[in-house]
Amino acid sequence: MSYETAVEALIDVGGRLHDRGWLPATSGNLSVRLGDGSIAITVSGAHKGGLRESDLMRVNGEGRAIDDHRRPSAETLLHTQIYATFPEVGVVLHTHSVNATVISRLLGRSWEIDDLEILKAFPGIDTHESRVSVPVFDNDQDMVRLAGEVERHLHDGPPGYLIRGHGLYAWGADMDAAVRHLEAFEFLLQCELLTREVTRS
Amino acid sequence: MSYETAVEALIDVGGRLHDRGWLPATSGNLSVRLGDGSIAITVSGAHKGGLRESDLMRVNGEGRAIDDHRRPSAETLLHTQIYATFPEVGVVLHTHSVNATVISRLLGRSWEIDDLEILKAFPGIDTHESRVSVPVFDNDQDMVRLAGEVERHLHDGPPGYLIRGHGLYAWGADMDAAVRHLEAFEFLLQCELLTREVTRS
Amino acid sequence: MSYETAVEALIDVGGRLHDRGWLPATSGNLSVRLGDGSIAITVSGAHKGGLRESDLMRVNGEGRAIDDHRRPSAETLLHTQIYATFPEVGVVLHTHSVNATVISRLLGRSWEIDDLEILKAFPGIDTHESRVSVPVFDNDQDMVRLAGEVERHLHDGPPGYLIRGHGLYAWGADMDAAVRHLEAFEFLLQCELLTREVTRS
Amino acid sequence: MSYETAVEALIDVGGRLHDRGWLPATSGNLSVRLGDGSIAITVSGAHKGGLRESDLMRVNGEGRAIDDHRRPSAETLLHTQIYATFPEVGVVLHTHSVNATVISRLLGRSWEIDDLEILKAFPGIDTHESRVSVPVFDNDQDMVRLAGEVERHLHDGPPGYLIRGHGLYAWGADMDAAVRHLEAFEFLLQCELLTREVTRS
Repeated sequence: MSYETAVEALIDVGGRLHDRGWLPATSGNLSVRLGDGSIAITVSGAHKGGLRESDLMRVNGEGRAIDDHRRPSAETLLHTQIYATFPEVGVVLHTHSVNATVISRLLGRSWEIDDLEILKAFPGIDTHESRVSVPVFDNDQDMVRLAGEVERHLHDGPPGYLIRGHGLYAWGADMDAAVRHLEAFEFLLQCELLTREVTRS
Repeated sequence: MSYETAVEALIDVGGRLHDRGWLPATSGNLSVRLGDGSIAITVSGAHKGGLRESDLMRVNGEGRAIDDHRRPSAETLLHTQIYATFPEVGVVLHTHSVNATVISRLLGRSWEIDDLEILKAFPGIDTHESRVSVPVFDNDQDMVRLAGEVERHLHDGPPGYLIRGHGLYAWGADMDAAVRHLEAFEFLLQCELLTREVTRS
Repeated sequence: MSYETAVEALIDVGGRLHDRGWLPATSGNLSVRLGDGSIAITVSGAHKGGLRESDLMRVNGEGRAIDDHRRPSAETLLHTQIYATFPEVGVVLHTHSVNATVISRLLGRSWEIDDLEILKAFPGIDTHESRVSVPVFDNDQDMVRLAGEVERHLHDGPPGYLIRGHGLYAWGADMDAAVRHLEAFEFLLQCELLTREVTRS
Repeated sequence: MSYETAVEALIDVGGRLHDRGWLPATSGNLSVRLGDGSIAITVSGAHKGGLRESDLMRVNGEGRAIDDHRRPSAETLLHTQIYATFPEVGVVLHTHSVNATVISRLLGRSWEIDDLEILKAFPGIDTHESRVSVPVFDNDQDMVRLAGEVERHLHDGPPGYLIRGHGLYAWGADMDAAVRHLEAFEFLLQCELLTREVTRS
């Protein structure tokens, strides 16, 4: 995929995810891995609901700017870590929904999910009789330290994790897969929230 | 109805139902019965929010592919069962809303509804002073076994049933009727959820 | 206002209110009073999200069809009652939201509201330090009997009432006023629901 | 910014915020400070979802009409107070969401927020490990008295405050900043509401 095509895809998905309330204010980051291994990613502080070309930049596999004087967002490191860990991943979406924020603060170090048909939206799961464990990391402004925590839990499990009081990282081989995984996580977060509201005694 | 017309109708309704959050990720299946008794149905794994012609296929009354090398979704059997049981039914919509998922896990073998005006949206009901019993089946990846369970409760009752932790099947004589029944079920699910939230002590 | 203009206005408002989830399935009725005192009103069973000219009809002040072989909806009587009671009213909107349905079942014979700025959206109210009492009637398929109940509480109070497990009637001098009152009632219903969810111990 | 440009910007943002349910009925006011220090502001009673040029007017820094026979809304005083206090502020948005209404009635004199990544949407905050205190004022139809209360808490704190049972005031250097702050406050209100629903025992 060329940088120009990636920019178009990121502008489009930014608008769609913002309309769903998953990228409030200027939260979140979105990225696509290009054919040459470099990455197109949103810059810090851009409003994802109305991205312009100037809100995107190109970084290398280590997250350093290519042909650009701007400093990438600190969270770029969490994107490059996912790309480095999973050669098949082409898109990383970091969203910031109310549900991800609220539920992540109520969970411990992981979110256990089972017995739901929607789990089949994740790779390698072909029955609702599965158990998925989503890591939940404490929020940290020190991205190197946070990436270190993530490193220890990234290799297995579903294509996503939560950062407490911060949001969700989800990824996939291409944009369709990443959005499908994101929709499944947000669906599961809403199920978790409503179930707690209705059953808490 | 021709296959081409059915494909257009399914692409249109898929987009509308996805926009309402009732077909997250690639969940759900949608079908229309054609004039010759064959069925146009979505293939497994398609995203219902942006269906293309290639995401649909034609099967016969037993659910076997017609002029197509692709294998139909396993859930096609639940569609053909409904068409075989009800000669007047022309459209079957299987959706996967958060409310259907959450409420179905809180119910036993049936969902009893009464004293609501919206019940008049269902065939043969002309007063809110009616009692409707919606079957709730345990989820099962073995569609033959699940169809067997459904068979025993399909003949009477409203035009729909729930599969626990999975979603809703709703049907009608044509697309308008099927969507009307689906909207009524989703309305009732939301009423059930909010009533439980507010009244649970 | 001519019948043609009224039809356009009703088709437009039907679509907008359906998109907000206030007219699920084929619930609700919408009407406009014309210059000659006759009334343009939706026929029974029409889907308000996509009204066609043929989904509307003209009735006289007593609710009898004018130049039309179709039988008006039984609920037409509740519209003509409002027009007969309030000469200044030009539009009546009967909606059927989840919140109106759920809250009306939790209330007694009236819904008391006070100390909210939004109350100023109702005629004659210029401070949040007001108390509004919205009548709540038991649902009844016998419209003559229901209209009799309504008659005793219609004359004073805000421009609307609830029917238990059924929905809301709201009205105003013109479409803008009726929609403004409807939005205020739906806002108040949502406040009532959320306050009960959060504060119920 | 010229008056004409400001009018266009206010018509556009009014439609967008109404579509999000933050300006029900005819609630709320929106304003922009022009290059010459005068202010373009919505008139009382206009429906923000479909603003027309005639729904806007120009006032001076003291809130008196310029070249206009109409009386500005009483709440204009709360806008001019913010512009007078913060020379860098160019846009003030007063919204009226269900969540702002419900939560403000459950809070005391302030709303304390901490440990959330979204706080970084506010000026001068660069870590989730911050504590923000949003003032909550009792509603009052006497704007001079209310402005007096506001005056004592306006100078420090985040770019917004709540009026009990009434809504939210949020502001920023330009429209993008004001909308970003508004989205962050509404996000925080939804987090507060859901957290109370799920954790209240």
